[in-house]
Amino acid sequence: MVSEAEMSESISTRLAWVAVDWGSSNLRAWAMDAGGAVLAEAEAARGMLGLAPADYEPALLAVIGDWLPAEGRITVLVCGMAGARQGWREAPYRPVPTALDALAEGAVSPAVEDARLDVRLLPGLCQGADAGGFDVMRGEETQLAGLAALESGVSGLVCLPGTHAKWATLDSGRVERFHTYMTGELYRLLAERSVLAHSLSEDDLEDSACREAFSAAVAEAAAAPEAFTRTLFGLRAMDLLDDALPDGEARGAVLAARLSGLAIGLELAGACGELAAGQSVRLIGVEALCRRYALALSALGHSSEIIANRRAVLAGLGLAHAALAHDALDHD
Amino acid sequence: MVSEAEMSESISTRLAWVAVDWGSSNLRAWAMDAGGAVLAEAEAARGMLGLAPADYEPALLAVIGDWLPAEGRITVLVCGMAGARQGWREAPYRPVPTALDALAEGAVSPAVEDARLDVRLLPGLCQGADAGGFDVMRGEETQLAGLAALESGVSGLVCLPGTHAKWATLDSGRVERFHTYMTGELYRLLAERSVLAHSLSEDDLEDSACREAFSAAVAEAAAAPEAFTRTLFGLRAMDLLDDALPDGEARGAVLAARLSGLAIGLELAGACGELAAGQSVRLIGVEALCRRYALALSALGHSSEIIANRRAVLAGLGLAHAALAHDALDHD
Repeated sequence: MVSEAEMSESISTRLAWVAVDWGSSNLRAWAMDAGGAVLAEAEAARGMLGLAPADYEPALLAVIGDWLPAEGRITVLVCGMAGARQGWREAPYRPVPTALDALAEGAVSPAVEDARLDVRLLPGLCQGADAGGFDVMRGEETQLAGLAALESGVSGLVCLPGTHAKWATLDSGRVERFHTYMTGELYRLLAERSVLAHSLSEDDLEDSACREAFSAAVAEAAAAPEAFTRTLFGLRAMDLLDDALPDGEARGAVLAARLSGLAIGLELAGACGELAAGQSVRLIGVEALCRRYALALSALGHSSEIIANRRAVLAGLGLAHAALAHDALDHD
Repeated sequence: MVSEAEMSESISTRLAWVAVDWGSSNLRAWAMDAGGAVLAEAEAARGMLGLAPADYEPALLAVIGDWLPAEGRITVLVCGMAGARQGWREAPYRPVPTALDALAEGAVSPAVEDARLDVRLLPGLCQGADAGGFDVMRGEETQLAGLAALESGVSGLVCLPGTHAKWATLDSGRVERFHTYMTGELYRLLAERSVLAHSLSEDDLEDSACREAFSAAVAEAAAAPEAFTRTLFGLRAMDLLDDALPDGEARGAVLAARLSGLAIGLELAGACGELAAGQSVRLIGVEALCRRYALALSALGHSSEIIANRRAVLAGLGLAHAALAHDALDHD
């Protein structure tokens, strides 16, 4: 049996750098070896929303401290909200269009007390009025960079579903433009805090009635986006009047699937305009949500391909780390 | 000087019937004489959401008790949520298409203890899937009846802005179909509970910057309803990036005006499809909100005419009262 101390020692002797995805509510860290393999991973519920600048270094050490060797300086490469203005230190947004292998150029180093730490915070991306309309992202650019690392010179439309879903148009490994849709937040507000809350329960897209209601709603919202706020109230009216709906828990589940379909369908009506015929959408994110988007896309006749969140983030941080290392060699 | 007792006596000797608009949060009552003039009016913050069935009669008497003569039976005609399933007693919805002068046919009488009261609760309207899509209204039908009373044989598109805005298509004094848009509730959720809350303050459409932002957003949402959830997040990005916006309080006001314009513009994109060229929209509701809608309609090149809430409700209750009185004569 290997003791915890022996395990840590085995990590610290092989540790080349640390990859960190530090969001609004969580931090996830991976101990990386020189070949890009993951030696260990850890996480904590310590996100930007609950941290003052001085809290970041202790929060980081609590998660990765055991991995660090006694001597030497380890690069800790961080993407996400830790680099926001309200985060550890601001890594200013880089404007699009921009190359995804150049993110490291915008990294900033916060002051640290522990001499073993060389922390680099990666920047987010911003877009001006003329470049496609005001927009910002922070964290997703690293997932996009991961895609560029996994598929050199990647082009096409990429969707990162979530509270604020991002759609990026890539061309030969560059972000040409991107758009954020407030779909996830809108769904949650409507499902939890509107008059609809009493009509809804949790949906289950494995269930055929939910699946059908979801797909029909996607097609309906995409075909008539101008009716969106009308179809929202229609959910309440259906609950009162529609005898064809199932009773009890199943009724709320079908109505929730329909609301989800309406919200995602409205998003797709806006986002899929950039999709060339026959072109597939790459989806990066958590599995269940990506599968929901894949179903929505298929309801509109579009195909898609899912790339797991973790794989994309690690590849993106790896690409930035390679650029930093290369840059360091150049300057030696 | 006239004492309060003398005033009540003067009302009760001339009182012919009582008109009541009883909504989710308030009740408003008017003492009417035989010629249709208002002798007195009163209101209380006692709505359907805070009342059990047994609470309605005492709540009504607390407001109108002083008006009632010692003897005789007075008709109290009530529209609104008091007739909902969760209200005093259910007055079942009448399906559209339906004539607006026939609402009284669907009135129900709740049991009362005070022998002076003859309470009639007016029904709401419902719409089936085949008649224009599932929808319901309760209260607004009486405002529409008021319009039919003020303008015999009225036809055209009528909008009643609010938490759940109603659009009704009238033809010769009949409701052909109607649609509810969840605009007001959606705006409030986004303005108060979403990520946008920190970027917004209260708008003022008398201010030219707010007015311009509002009108531009109406036109933008109506022209590209599929971009709605994208333009929502765009408000956050504008707050972060747009140097052309004013600073301080004025910044939040302009962004709030823009959010309001986007939400109402999306509604108009759906609702104005039924509007024939050159046709005007009748707006019934509270003054400030109707003026906001009138501005939105004018941004899309449509004219409108505002009918005050109180005038429409009183005329609608008056029409129903006349029908009841006529019916009583027929049966005498």
